[in-house]
Amino acid sequence: MVKQERAVRTRRALVKAAAEEFDRFGYDGTSLAAISKVAGVSIGAVTFHFPTKVHLADAVQQEGRTVTLVALERLAAEAMTPLRMVIDLTLELTRLMEQEPTVRSAIRLSRERPGTEAWSDAWLPMVRGLLERAYENGQLHTDALPADVTLLVEHLTSGAEAYLRTRMGSDPAFESAVAQLKRVWRLALVGVSAEAPTLPRQADAPDQDQEEAGR
Amino acid sequence: MVKQERAVRTRRALVKAAAEEFDRFGYDGTSLAAISKVAGVSIGAVTFHFPTKVHLADAVQQEGRTVTLVALERLAAEAMTPLRMVIDLTLELTRLMEQEPTVRSAIRLSRERPGTEAWSDAWLPMVRGLLERAYENGQLHTDALPADVTLLVEHLTSGAEAYLRTRMGSDPAFESAVAQLKRVWRLALVGVSAEAPTLPRQADAPDQDQEEAGR
Repeated sequence: MVKQERAVRTRRALVKAAAEEFDRFGYDGTSLAAISKVAGVSIGAVTFHFPTKVHLADAVQQEGRTVTLVALERLAAEAMTPLRMVIDLTLELTRLMEQEPTVRSAIRLSRERPGTEAWSDAWLPMVRGLLERAYENGQLHTDALPADVTLLVEHLTSGAEAYLRTRMGSDPAFESAVAQLKRVWRLALVGVSAEAPTLPRQADAPDQDQEEAGR
Repeated sequence: MVKQERAVRTRRALVKAAAEEFDRFGYDGTSLAAISKVAGVSIGAVTFHFPTKVHLADAVQQEGRTVTLVALERLAAEAMTPLRMVIDLTLELTRLMEQEPTVRSAIRLSRERPGTEAWSDAWLPMVRGLLERAYENGQLHTDALPADVTLLVEHLTSGAEAYLRTRMGSDPAFESAVAQLKRVWRLALVGVSAEAPTLPRQADAPDQDQEEAGR
């Protein structure tokens, strides 16, 4: 029993250490030896839990997806319009990128390991479904097709990740990627939302795109 | 003389091979031995021209920047409004990503080698300058600040690269990233341009955002 708990703890510590290493150095730049050192776990214990780097990378990608899915489930339970939920979803994904090494690592690993499941598979179907509903509800600009808005969402989310990847570490005073994405959405939303023919002012009411722009 | 020409040719072949390898396998996943093999050049000749991997990576990043700057100079010589030029610039950058391994490689390397010059340093100042002029000319929506539009441009350009990075290789029938970016711009431009209060239809006139939306 105690032994089993310890094994679970060790596994968790290894996935956490691996996420940090993969995030910083990539798949090829990371070794089991480095992970063993960072986790403070013997190399024998590492290979007992994860025989190869492939197993550890798979576990990190799985963990990043799980963390993402849990956050999205929480979001899906809230009461808001489908379009608003898409926007909040991108902000939540960006917050996860900013705060969760497993998520950043899952993104990087799925890019560096072609053939493995992409991180975006965890959320893109939800975005597509929400935008279809927003379109049917008349929430989207009649010329804004759900497929094109989905594409916009993919571009903005990748943009947030690229920004973080460049600034984290090199620029300690960097602006939050979430704050940046809000500024970008304010511009992009005008062509997307049927209810936002005018652009709300920058200065006031930073979170009221939908409400303000109604008139 | 002939010897010098051969040296230039070898150098060029090495930078080309290195760009392809770094693009596919990243900085840590690439060895001088692999580059020597791909280029068909002995390892002795490789280290004669580039003593270490650092030297080769620097040369590839430099070449990617040069290719980018040459393309932008050509673009800058054309007669068009600053805002139109920003849009064409992002499409040209995306075309380069799609077709030039040195550019893709420069992007990946500057991400994986913190502290080296970022690829975006080659074009971001031009974007900022053009958007300042567009704002002064009244071409931008009065609520669309140049700094925010610059941020949008950065997000969309990173989005194009992420899309290419995911699809190239894994999906032979993938849609051109340039075509995708045009679809995204059609949505995003509505909140950016003072002259585009309505969204042009998808079906007709795929390249006439500015002209059509004037009324």
